Amino acid sequence: MMSSFNSIEFKNDKLILINQTKLPLQEEYIKTDKYYRIAEAIENLEVRGAPAIGVAAAYALALAFKHKKYSEKYFDTVYNRLASTRPTAVNLFWALEEMKSVYTQNRESGNLYEILLHKAIEIHQNDIIKCDLMAKNGLKIFDKKSVVLTHCNTGKLATGGNGTAFNVISKGFENGLVSHVYADETRPLLQGSRLTAFELDKAGIPFSIITDSTAAFLMKQKKVDLVIVGSDRIAVNGDAANKIGTYNLAVLCNYHHIPFYIAAPVTTIDKSCKTGDDIKIELRNKSEILEIKGVPVSKGTYDVFSPAFDITPSELIKGIITDSGFYKFPFNFVEI
Amino acid sequence: MMSSFNSIEFKNDKLILINQTKLPLQEEYIKTDKYYRIAEAIENLEVRGAPAIGVAAAYALALAFKHKKYSEKYFDTVYNRLASTRPTAVNLFWALEEMKSVYTQNRESGNLYEILLHKAIEIHQNDIIKCDLMAKNGLKIFDKKSVVLTHCNTGKLATGGNGTAFNVISKGFENGLVSHVYADETRPLLQGSRLTAFELDKAGIPFSIITDSTAAFLMKQKKVDLVIVGSDRIAVNGDAANKIGTYNLAVLCNYHHIPFYIAAPVTTIDKSCKTGDDIKIELRNKSEILEIKGVPVSKGTYDVFSPAFDITPSELIKGIITDSGFYKFPFNFVEI
Repeated sequence: MMSSFNSIEFKNDKLILINQTKLPLQEEYIKTDKYYRIAEAIENLEVRGAPAIGVAAAYALALAFKHKKYSEKYFDTVYNRLASTRPTAVNLFWALEEMKSVYTQNRESGNLYEILLHKAIEIHQNDIIKCDLMAKNGLKIFDKKSVVLTHCNTGKLATGGNGTAFNVISKGFENGLVSHVYADETRPLLQGSRLTAFELDKAGIPFSIITDSTAAFLMKQKKVDLVIVGSDRIAVNGDAANKIGTYNLAVLCNYHHIPFYIAAPVTTIDKSCKTGDDIKIELRNKSEILEIKGVPVSKGTYDVFSPAFDITPSELIKGIITDSGFYKFPFNFVEI
Repeated sequence: MMSSFNSIEFKNDKLILINQTKLPLQEEYIKTDKYYRIAEAIENLEVRGAPAIGVAAAYALALAFKHKKYSEKYFDTVYNRLASTRPTAVNLFWALEEMKSVYTQNRESGNLYEILLHKAIEIHQNDIIKCDLMAKNGLKIFDKKSVVLTHCNTGKLATGGNGTAFNVISKGFENGLVSHVYADETRPLLQGSRLTAFELDKAGIPFSIITDSTAAFLMKQKKVDLVIVGSDRIAVNGDAANKIGTYNLAVLCNYHHIPFYIAAPVTTIDKSCKTGDDIKIELRNKSEILEIKGVPVSKGTYDVFSPAFDITPSELIKGIITDSGFYKFPFNFVEI
C-alpha cells in the first residue's frame, strides 16, 4: 500500500511541498514558483531530510529562470541564497553543483528554464529510483513476518522518493513480511513520533510510538525481530553516523541477539572517511532539550550536552542496504 | 554542600511542600494545615516520589486531628481520601497503616493530634536517617574522582530525606569523588531535566542534561565512570524495577564495562517477589508521549506503548546500596 500524500511534487510549473513543521497535526502544502520561497522552506525546516532538500533546491534553481533570462549576477544571487539555507547539508551542495553545471553549458539557450527543469526532474527521478532499489535490495532481511523497530525519520518526508529504511519496511509490509512497527519518538526533535508516525499511518502499517528508552524493554520481552535505520554518512569500513540514539539501539541489538541494519543510498558513503573517527559530530542547541514547541520545560541556564548524531561501529551492523546492493559485515566500500 | 531548599518541612503546625509541578521554572511552596489540601497535592503530583508521598500523607493524617476529636467516621473519611490519591504507591499505604495503628491505640487520648504528629515526625526522621545511611554505605563505589550518570529523580524531591541514589552522588561530591553528573532527561515526564537538574543545581554539583539516548554516546567515548539509579521495587534475587530506561542503561554499562549500581532503602525489597518476573509493570497514558505540558506534539489518535518501569536483571547490577549495607551480586535478600 502506498502512502496517500506527496512530500515533494512538481505540477503545473509549481513546486508543491508538504509543510513538515505542521505535521502531523496539520497537513498543509506550500505551492510556489518562487525560488526564494523554497529557500525559506529549506531554512525553516518546512522541507527537511538530506535528499529531499537537494531535490527542492534543484527545482528552486530551475524555477528562478521561469521568467528570467541569463545574467551572471542573478544566477549567483539565486545560487548563494539557496546554498546559505542549510550550510551542513551535503546533498544540497551536490544538487546545486549539478544544476550549476547544466546552467553553465546552456546559459545562453533560449529555453534555459526547460533545460534546468529537465535536470531537476532527473535529480528527483533518480532519487525515487534509488529509494525503490533500496527497498528491493532490503527485502531479504525479512526471513519471516517480523516486528520492526526504527529510529528517526527515513520515509517520503526525508527523501525525494519513498524513503530509505522506511521504504524497506514499507516493501516488507506490502509483501506480508512486517506485522508491526515500533517507532522511537527520537528526542530531541521527535522526528519519530511526529513524522515517522505520520508516514506509517498514511501507509496503513500498524505501529506504536515508544520513548527512545523503551526499545530495551521490548527487546528483553522478545517483541522486536529486527532494527533498521537510515544513515547520514557511512565511512569506508562501514562505521555509520546517524541520529543520536542509533548507536544505543545497535548495542541493545548486540546484547539481545537481534539483527541491526542500515539502509542508505551509495552517495551516503564518504570515501574521505576511513572509519567513523573521521566523521565530525555536530552539537545541537540546548533549547531543543529545554524547550518543546517553544514552551520551556526546564531552566534555560542549565547545561546540556546534545550531539546531533552518533557513530555505530561496523561490527554492530549486520548489513547495509544500498541502491547498488546488500552488503554484509565486514564492509569495505573502497571500490563501490 | 547541602542543597538550599526544603522539599518537605513541618513548621509552626503547618506542612510546607515545594510544588514539584512548577519546578524548576518556579520555586513555589504550598503551606497548609488542611489534610485535604495535602491529599490534593499528592493527587496532582505537587509532591511525588514514593517515600516523599508517605511522609506527606503521615503529616496530613496528623493535621486532620489538629482541631478535631476522635470520630470513627471522620477517621475513615480522612484515611480513604488520602489512600485514594495514588492507588499504586506502596509507601503511601505503609505510612497510612503506621498512622492508623497509632490512632487506634490512642484515639480517645486528649492529645491525639500531638501523638499522631509525633508518629509522622518519626516516619519523616526515619526516612532522613535511611537516606544518610545509604549515602554512607554507597561511598565505596567511588574508587577515584568519577563522572556519574543517573536517571530519573532520586533526591530530596523524591524522599523525606536527602535522597537515595542522589544522596550517594551528593556524598561523593562532598568528598571530592564526583567531578560531573550527566542527568538523563527521562522521558516521558522529564524528571531528570526538571527535577534532578534542579537538585544538582541547588547542590552546586556540575552537571549536564542529556537525552536518554545520549548515554551510549558518552559511554563509548569513555566519559562515564559509573551509573547509579534508584529503584521502585527489588525482588529477592536482586532484579530491580525502576523508571523506564534503567534497563537500557544497565545493558549499555555491561557492553562498555561500566559498573551499574542501585541505591534504595531495604523497604524497597519486596519479599513476595522471588524474581523480577513477579513485578507487575504499569502502562502509562499515551498523552504523556503525545503532549508535552499540555501542548500536542503529535496526533492523539496514534498508538503508544509506554511502560512506566522496566526490570533490570540482577546479573547486570554490580551492587545494591541500602540503609542496612552494601550488597554485591549475586543477591539473596531472603533474610534481610
